[in-house]
Amino acid sequence: MTIRTVVWGENIHERENAIVRDIYPDGMHATIASALNKDPEVEATTATLQEPEHGLSVERLAETDVLVWWGHKAHGDVSDEIVERVASRVWEGMGLLVLHSGHFAKPFKRLMGTPCALKWREAGERERIWTVNPGHPIAAGIPENFVLENEEMYGEFFSVPEPLETVFISWFAGGEIFRSGLTWRRGAGNIFYFRPGHETYPTYHDANVQQVIRNGVKWAYNPMPRYGAVHDAPNVPVEEALEPITERGPRLHQAGEEGYK
Amino acid sequence: MTIRTVVWGENIHERENAIVRDIYPDGMHATIASALNKDPEVEATTATLQEPEHGLSVERLAETDVLVWWGHKAHGDVSDEIVERVASRVWEGMGLLVLHSGHFAKPFKRLMGTPCALKWREAGERERIWTVNPGHPIAAGIPENFVLENEEMYGEFFSVPEPLETVFISWFAGGEIFRSGLTWRRGAGNIFYFRPGHETYPTYHDANVQQVIRNGVKWAYNPMPRYGAVHDAPNVPVEEALEPITERGPRLHQAGEEGYK
Amino acid sequence: MTIRTVVWGENIHERENAIVRDIYPDGMHATIASALNKDPEVEATTATLQEPEHGLSVERLAETDVLVWWGHKAHGDVSDEIVERVASRVWEGMGLLVLHSGHFAKPFKRLMGTPCALKWREAGERERIWTVNPGHPIAAGIPENFVLENEEMYGEFFSVPEPLETVFISWFAGGEIFRSGLTWRRGAGNIFYFRPGHETYPTYHDANVQQVIRNGVKWAYNPMPRYGAVHDAPNVPVEEALEPITERGPRLHQAGEEGYK
Amino acid sequence: MTIRTVVWGENIHERENAIVRDIYPDGMHATIASALNKDPEVEATTATLQEPEHGLSVERLAETDVLVWWGHKAHGDVSDEIVERVASRVWEGMGLLVLHSGHFAKPFKRLMGTPCALKWREAGERERIWTVNPGHPIAAGIPENFVLENEEMYGEFFSVPEPLETVFISWFAGGEIFRSGLTWRRGAGNIFYFRPGHETYPTYHDANVQQVIRNGVKWAYNPMPRYGAVHDAPNVPVEEALEPITERGPRLHQAGEEGYK
Repeated sequence: MTIRTVVWGENIHERENAIVRDIYPDGMHATIASALNKDPEVEATTATLQEPEHGLSVERLAETDVLVWWGHKAHGDVSDEIVERVASRVWEGMGLLVLHSGHFAKPFKRLMGTPCALKWREAGERERIWTVNPGHPIAAGIPENFVLENEEMYGEFFSVPEPLETVFISWFAGGEIFRSGLTWRRGAGNIFYFRPGHETYPTYHDANVQQVIRNGVKWAYNPMPRYGAVHDAPNVPVEEALEPITERGPRLHQAGEEGYK
Repeated sequence: MTIRTVVWGENIHERENAIVRDIYPDGMHATIASALNKDPEVEATTATLQEPEHGLSVERLAETDVLVWWGHKAHGDVSDEIVERVASRVWEGMGLLVLHSGHFAKPFKRLMGTPCALKWREAGERERIWTVNPGHPIAAGIPENFVLENEEMYGEFFSVPEPLETVFISWFAGGEIFRSGLTWRRGAGNIFYFRPGHETYPTYHDANVQQVIRNGVKWAYNPMPRYGAVHDAPNVPVEEALEPITERGPRLHQAGEEGYK
Repeated sequence: MTIRTVVWGENIHERENAIVRDIYPDGMHATIASALNKDPEVEATTATLQEPEHGLSVERLAETDVLVWWGHKAHGDVSDEIVERVASRVWEGMGLLVLHSGHFAKPFKRLMGTPCALKWREAGERERIWTVNPGHPIAAGIPENFVLENEEMYGEFFSVPEPLETVFISWFAGGEIFRSGLTWRRGAGNIFYFRPGHETYPTYHDANVQQVIRNGVKWAYNPMPRYGAVHDAPNVPVEEALEPITERGPRLHQAGEEGYK
Repeated sequence: MTIRTVVWGENIHERENAIVRDIYPDGMHATIASALNKDPEVEATTATLQEPEHGLSVERLAETDVLVWWGHKAHGDVSDEIVERVASRVWEGMGLLVLHSGHFAKPFKRLMGTPCALKWREAGERERIWTVNPGHPIAAGIPENFVLENEEMYGEFFSVPEPLETVFISWFAGGEIFRSGLTWRRGAGNIFYFRPGHETYPTYHDANVQQVIRNGVKWAYNPMPRYGAVHDAPNVPVEEALEPITERGPRLHQAGEEGYK
């Protein structure tokens, strides 16, 4: 088993901002992919906004088990067609990890069905991340809490749907808390949001952060074959009913007719 | 307290199809609104696809506590602008009841973030609805099971997100089951999906169905003032931090700058 | 509608400790009951450990809609018979609010099925309580955050089941966070745990805390008639099956026999 | 990785009833263990009520990753000490599968905190099990529905807590439905309840049933080291606080004192 993972990076701050470039000379996506490839069960490659189809062609997504997403400045530049394609693959069973400012990424908002808004402050303040679900696979090997000395603050209310499970909650020096590790299932696809990762700090070089992302990829991986049926709304004809029934009363549709969508 | 409720009807089958018109001479929406108005705490009016802005102007939605939605044949004719407007009001606290074929209505799919697909068969078969959460307010006064002698079958997999709670599950004579009563919260808005209600059967004249819809409106009603903050992603400046902190390290945004969306 | 509420107090610290007595001269339970009685929809009385049957006779519980529980030093003195009686009433529809050190109260542990353990520190440190579910009825009228200047710290991992919804999360000056407002349903009974309320601080005189408890009582109130069927495991004889079926194959039980428990 | 699994069987019907013995000559537990051992990742052994400590000594449970439980006639004969031992191991990370009439088993009721009651009828009627969460690991390789031609009926209301996820729902020929595959997490332990398996029918010889149980064992397996901290309620002294704080105000406990339980 190898989990074919694509780390998608917006790839703008790294090129335009010297501070970010110094921390991530090959781009944040490269650092994250490299952290994932430390695990022999994961095979991570990268894709960026600037590539044709943002690097997410139909063919490539078909061979992707888990997609990791980091975006910030250019959410609006992501094509709506690609957003639908990503959402569709998630419903069919592709895992999705959304990192930090990706809370406003189009595919995440599309899958959540909510604004995904939050408070923020860029002050390099201390963040302490607490594990509130120590038995969850995403928390494997993570201590009961760990510190990121410099991070952007994100504060509640984080307007996402109530998660399947809450795995991490952050404490910030400035007085806020934030639900930092949340899981959902959508169709056959597992989704994990993980908060840390502001571009001006070396967060993705942190050993615990890397471990959480590796755990997240493994948790999100769904080995089942592509679940194409998630899109279908099949008519089950009376003569194929599982139990014998007789058609009764009026009906709207002719035999064999498609339903309305 | 009066719960200002709008029952939205697509209002096509009732006009084009004699069978449906015979059952619902004033339209399905009128029958549903009338059932709601039996409760002194509810004040229900109607809106239809054919009205300007589908009867859902900004002003009207601002004065709507709960919206009930029935659509089928013309999902695609609902304007995307109105869909966003409805979703936005739900996040701000408006309740939403989605009935039967509304599973494919644009506002519902928008809020779920999933395909909302299912199996179906139009054979007038027996449906028996079981209460699996008897203490839930939506089940108040509903027996442990009740029968709809003629209904369209809906079968699993119903591709919606795992609900907050499952209230009803249907048994069908042809061998299928279906999760028929499901709840979610999105932002400050409560959402209830209720399965029965095919247009060629007198389902909305059934006393239990009417009671469930009344219960659903009361459960979905959120008396809090409009929660406009759900859309905001405010910056919290360092000098306004709740605990005294000092700005440290590099930052991307200038003071007072908006975040990226 | 009047919600008949009983505030149960252990009533030991108030009598043995001068500091606690100064803050709550009539007992913590009296202060809480008084805060509840400010609401015309609530009629709160008190019961204490020292009364016969701890003040929770079968008759009294039968007439109790919501029970509020504060205990700390004498959890072990609560009779197991009363614990079963309380749990049973919750399953039948009585609401239950568990406050602060009540996390280790026998009825709460009985209903959760987990240890309900947590970290703690008694240093009078600052607690800031954040609303993470602003549309929830329990958060009605509560600001996005409020401060208790002196409180005991509770820290994660709080070993309770994943809640139905998380309403509040606390930030502590010493670096911890805690899921402070959690809801569950057990049978027909609604349960709300609310963290604040160490006996040596004036927490139950705080306006926001009082409001949360009032909201909690209203949310937990289930107006349905006592749901006695929650205890039953009835046999449904073949001849009374909802659909006609014929008995087939061997069976273990004789007709009319009770099932095994 | 080998998942050390113990299949616990009450082992009474198989010895006392000729019909059951004919179907399961070595006991139901042996058939289930044998089905599990078809998977190279699972190493299943058995334990029975009649063994010393019911075959569940401290040492054995310490080396058990997943426990599978089948009981019916003799729930009351299971020692309360063993029940606490099993619950404790679940909180520490041992997986638990509860089968069929195990809904009334003491360890299950202990972990659920509810009556776990349901309706029943022993008529050898047709059960059709529907997958309502096709992307869940427990549904891997299971068709959208499968039939057990002869089974005991279980009907709602099944008085368990709202599950983490609903995986299977059953349709019965006599008109009932039942939530047949449910998951919970308690502490670090994963719990799966699976309905089928009445002793007078050959259910555990069914290929789909065997596959679900294998999937369930793999899903319930938590590879983390024993999570002993789930039992602790440690004091965090002021001088060891993560952020520097000063002790303020009165306190109840002396330094180093244990908390109340």
